[in-house]
Amino acid sequence: MIVYGRNAVREAQRGRRRVLRVWEQGDVPAEELERLCGSPDHQGVVAEVEPYPYVDPAGLLGAEDALVIALDQVHDPQNFGAICRSAEGAGASGVVIPGHGSVEVTPAVCRASAGAVEHLAIARVRNLADYLGQAKSEGAWVYGAEAGADTPHWRPDYRGKVVIVLGSEGKGLRPRVRGACDQLVALPLRGRLESLNVAATAAALLYEIVRQRTEP
Amino acid sequence: MIVYGRNAVREAQRGRRRVLRVWEQGDVPAEELERLCGSPDHQGVVAEVEPYPYVDPAGLLGAEDALVIALDQVHDPQNFGAICRSAEGAGASGVVIPGHGSVEVTPAVCRASAGAVEHLAIARVRNLADYLGQAKSEGAWVYGAEAGADTPHWRPDYRGKVVIVLGSEGKGLRPRVRGACDQLVALPLRGRLESLNVAATAAALLYEIVRQRTEP
Repeated sequence: MIVYGRNAVREAQRGRRRVLRVWEQGDVPAEELERLCGSPDHQGVVAEVEPYPYVDPAGLLGAEDALVIALDQVHDPQNFGAICRSAEGAGASGVVIPGHGSVEVTPAVCRASAGAVEHLAIARVRNLADYLGQAKSEGAWVYGAEAGADTPHWRPDYRGKVVIVLGSEGKGLRPRVRGACDQLVALPLRGRLESLNVAATAAALLYEIVRQRTEP
Repeated sequence: MIVYGRNAVREAQRGRRRVLRVWEQGDVPAEELERLCGSPDHQGVVAEVEPYPYVDPAGLLGAEDALVIALDQVHDPQNFGAICRSAEGAGASGVVIPGHGSVEVTPAVCRASAGAVEHLAIARVRNLADYLGQAKSEGAWVYGAEAGADTPHWRPDYRGKVVIVLGSEGKGLRPRVRGACDQLVALPLRGRLESLNVAATAAALLYEIVRQRTEP
């Protein structure tokens, strides 16, 4: 597949998959780069790399302080990439996505993540609600983020194995996914808008967990 | 000026400026909407509204718990809009931007903020370092967010008047702006990438402040 953009290509070179070829502006014209990656947003560099190396979801909850982000109905590549970047920065164990239809690690996601996907474990599962049930049976606590939930996101004790489930901004969590959560939490809203961006929600939640685990 | 997108137009209608005209898909063809707003991302609705009502920066630090976000060198409209949305959600007093060159509230920013700019106080200042000096003389503590700073972002006590300064991802804070900060803080990084997205940084910082102020 193709990756483009300075950070995305650099991190692919530092990451797990082989970089097969790199094109840089100057060697080839900008129009050729745009044609190769399908976007004007290449910053002068495009690479051909091996397919994205998804991991087995079974391995993500091994550590006693495993932290997994599960995405339900997050379709936007900008948001998916931004969530991956924050998850990598916060040292999350990995990100779980539904295996069909929803999202995948496309060139636009690599770019939006600033290459974080190269260092992050991302797994696909057939059914997200079933995965959450499995995670609970492995001792994880599953928290769903949903605008309007009564519990502020800083209230739970996030030590131990944790899965955070994030839904789409428009529709929230699907009923079976919501039902598989141990607890719903929300970032309190102090303004007039009724929701936050899902990537902003992810960043605030991830760093609340980092804070709690660093300074108990 | 023009605003486009469902949330941006709805919030303009609920907000402070007059909406002069609305075009909806069906009444006019999609191509006409795209021509009007200059983007394919209009979601079927475009409006003409009054110019953006910037506020006077002098009023932003009046409250005893004023919380102001100051942006230094944040040029990307997606990031500026996303920061405005999180600031509105967290109940910030306002956002301060340099008055020339850097950013302004463009149609793309309105769209990226999901219309949050309509309810948020945004002020332009001639010189950001001078503004920060003024803020300190009014009793505010000024925190600069900079990747690599020794102090984790949750360490300060954010009660009282607070200004948070965010810089560009590539270059960080300019020297005079950095010098005008009382303290530099960073979101600790646990992965391999060396920085977070500036809008993710803003979300985590804003909600750490909300947490501290809600549950002391």
